[in-house]
Amino acid sequence: MSDRNILLPVSEIPRQWYNILADIQLNPPLKPDGSPVTPEDLAPVFPMNLIEQEVSTQRWIDIPEPVLDVLRIWRPAPLYRALGLERALGTPARIFVKNEGLSPPGSHKPNTAVPQAYYNKVFGIRRMTTETGAGQWGSALAFACAQFGIECRVYMVRVSFEQKPYRKTMMAMWGGQCVPSPSSETRAGRAALARDPRTPGSLGIAISEAVEAAVTDPSGKTRYSLGSVLNHVMLHQTIIGLEAKKQFASIGLYPDVIVGCAGGGSNFAGLAFPFVLDKINGRELAIHPVEPAACPTLTRAPFVYDHGDTAGYTPLLAMHSLGHDFVPPPIHAGGLRYHGMAPTVSQLVAEGIAEPRAVTQSEAYAAGVLWARTEGTIPAPETANALAQVVKEALQAKEEGRAKVIVATFSGHGLLDLAAYEKYLAGELSDVQMSAEELRKSTEVFQNYPKPQALKSR
Amino acid sequence: MSDRNILLPVSEIPRQWYNILADIQLNPPLKPDGSPVTPEDLAPVFPMNLIEQEVSTQRWIDIPEPVLDVLRIWRPAPLYRALGLERALGTPARIFVKNEGLSPPGSHKPNTAVPQAYYNKVFGIRRMTTETGAGQWGSALAFACAQFGIECRVYMVRVSFEQKPYRKTMMAMWGGQCVPSPSSETRAGRAALARDPRTPGSLGIAISEAVEAAVTDPSGKTRYSLGSVLNHVMLHQTIIGLEAKKQFASIGLYPDVIVGCAGGGSNFAGLAFPFVLDKINGRELAIHPVEPAACPTLTRAPFVYDHGDTAGYTPLLAMHSLGHDFVPPPIHAGGLRYHGMAPTVSQLVAEGIAEPRAVTQSEAYAAGVLWARTEGTIPAPETANALAQVVKEALQAKEEGRAKVIVATFSGHGLLDLAAYEKYLAGELSDVQMSAEELRKSTEVFQNYPKPQALKSR
Repeated sequence: MSDRNILLPVSEIPRQWYNILADIQLNPPLKPDGSPVTPEDLAPVFPMNLIEQEVSTQRWIDIPEPVLDVLRIWRPAPLYRALGLERALGTPARIFVKNEGLSPPGSHKPNTAVPQAYYNKVFGIRRMTTETGAGQWGSALAFACAQFGIECRVYMVRVSFEQKPYRKTMMAMWGGQCVPSPSSETRAGRAALARDPRTPGSLGIAISEAVEAAVTDPSGKTRYSLGSVLNHVMLHQTIIGLEAKKQFASIGLYPDVIVGCAGGGSNFAGLAFPFVLDKINGRELAIHPVEPAACPTLTRAPFVYDHGDTAGYTPLLAMHSLGHDFVPPPIHAGGLRYHGMAPTVSQLVAEGIAEPRAVTQSEAYAAGVLWARTEGTIPAPETANALAQVVKEALQAKEEGRAKVIVATFSGHGLLDLAAYEKYLAGELSDVQMSAEELRKSTEVFQNYPKPQALKSR
Repeated sequence: MSDRNILLPVSEIPRQWYNILADIQLNPPLKPDGSPVTPEDLAPVFPMNLIEQEVSTQRWIDIPEPVLDVLRIWRPAPLYRALGLERALGTPARIFVKNEGLSPPGSHKPNTAVPQAYYNKVFGIRRMTTETGAGQWGSALAFACAQFGIECRVYMVRVSFEQKPYRKTMMAMWGGQCVPSPSSETRAGRAALARDPRTPGSLGIAISEAVEAAVTDPSGKTRYSLGSVLNHVMLHQTIIGLEAKKQFASIGLYPDVIVGCAGGGSNFAGLAFPFVLDKINGRELAIHPVEPAACPTLTRAPFVYDHGDTAGYTPLLAMHSLGHDFVPPPIHAGGLRYHGMAPTVSQLVAEGIAEPRAVTQSEAYAAGVLWARTEGTIPAPETANALAQVVKEALQAKEEGRAKVIVATFSGHGLLDLAAYEKYLAGELSDVQMSAEELRKSTEVFQNYPKPQALKSR
């Protein structure tokens, strides 16, 4: 029988990240008046060393040794062959996942939380603020801040805060503080509560709160941290795909299909970007970001300039967006409840290099349970979205009689999401679709903004 | 900087278990009348292939390939160097843990659940029953049964069932059924409820229920499974120590101190037994099973013949015991709330080969939080007991100025135990000690039973 775990020797851990900005073009971030954002504009929000990374077009960027030291707590991550799922589906496809669920917070998020905390520390920052959806990102930043001795304050989308009280405890284990958003601590939070006192919250609102809390700190020693969307976040996540490439090479394979769930885009990007260059250079390769049908950013929303947050504190970013006022239904894949998408991922979709797919909540949970029964591990609901697409691809390969190599990111485990699975098993979850009318209304907000240019990378 | 993860290549996974019965002598299990238990006596409870393994004195026993196939879902397990904890303690000691928290159910328990389910399947069994304390064992058996297509019914100690509702969901993810014990389903459960309708339950009672449910099934296709205590369980767990030995050899080290928390003894035995032979042959080596001060089986209770369960369904086993009626206080390390101890581990303690230690609940949780802040991973409360002893050993090494090599089993993660940590962080946990009078009363129960002989392995 074959080996299920393809391990990379610790000495083979990648020493550089891959920067996709060396190989694709992006529409630049703009101010609301249409003028380009300068590094100085971002200085109150992020430390300058991360801003430099955000705009760099250097293809390979060194990973600092103190960052590698922390990443080695759980990296290199296994490339896992899903032999049990293959047998259950009776497919000739070879299914692999890159297991990012083994990090202390349980997801891929610390891949960027650790370098972000490190660069903030080096820049002299004492306190970091952020938002979190499902809680994966907030946990990751709390963990990373503990490693470098930085304070951490996390604004957690209220619906997730209530569904997952233990995420708060997890952050507290690492010395982090977690408050439900919208809170009454910030102007943005109070405005959201005034609009709807019973709002479930959204990532857009929580981002506004965290940015405001950072830029209004009179000490000047607080900065904001974003767990997805931005270029430097995608950069840090490429360690996933760089490891996977080495692991595939060690067994003499190369993927035919790449799958990753996409909320803000970072977990998808982490696996896919190192393979994108090969596709740009002519390699035949299907690349699928997967999103919930209830929050169809890539599959149904237009490619526009829009704000990354609800209050409009962030620059205008060229991306697929459902509109920055969009409050997604409280589906349990909290990490995928975001109105926008990373500009890099959006650009790949705009050019047809990445082809997005949407799955329903039922498809996702069914795939999550199937995975647990065949492979044991319980996937996060976000991960289950990717697995639903993997199942579809594997069944298609069966129909075609092709031993395709399919690889997905197993973005995190679902051990803190068992309440959602409990509801699914009890038949209490239902599917939500966005109507055409809802889509039209929610995308009205950016009609008067500048429009992105059509750019071509190949 | 050094590598934190010492990975064993997948091809190096041990192909045989180590059977300590080849190297030590044990007092045999007895019937209540003092006559030896025969394999036939056990046949209604366990399948004969496992009974044969239970009494085997062959030193090396082959691991079947279908068992290895499932173990490879998460094995080999990393040997992890706790560089962050070493720095925080300022100790010259080199601290390692064998990380058993990466299995799908999150603990070392599937190391035996998988072979047990396999041997039952081969023997034609269709349904397995068991008990669980903290939920780790019940989850492990549900996971293993799903891998081999066997039904699984788990009686979970009521206090843990209530503290950790998600363990039930986890078992349901794998198709297992979980009921709180004592239940009204069995004679043993009803008797316990009659004695005290508000009892928190105990492992002893739950074992009685699970055994009764197995032996009274008229189809004859149900068997009981025990997650600790018995010889074949210890045997299956030795893969932990066998891997660790190879990993230490790969970095040119050998441990000075071995630590494992001990409830029924299996996680301790798994790491320690492969090293015990070296100690018997003259190697200087400290071996410490660690238990909660609230349930002081090895540190304060006598070495006697006693039943493994409360109703007296099991044979008399020669072991350290607090008395089979003992209901431990509801400390959160549910997996360590057991009145007895594996006869093999008890024998090592009786001979002075293993030297037990007790830690308080506060010491354990403090160590758990310290570990989380320095190394990231959140340990199970059971594991935190071992880590508390590791901290003591590392501080002693600092006092002595010795770069001792300390290794412990990281028996499981604490992601389903965050409610207990929440209480600890809020200052709501208090320490419980057993008084001398309580100990005297709880050990009256076996005064008229046969007495074990003093045996000597070296």
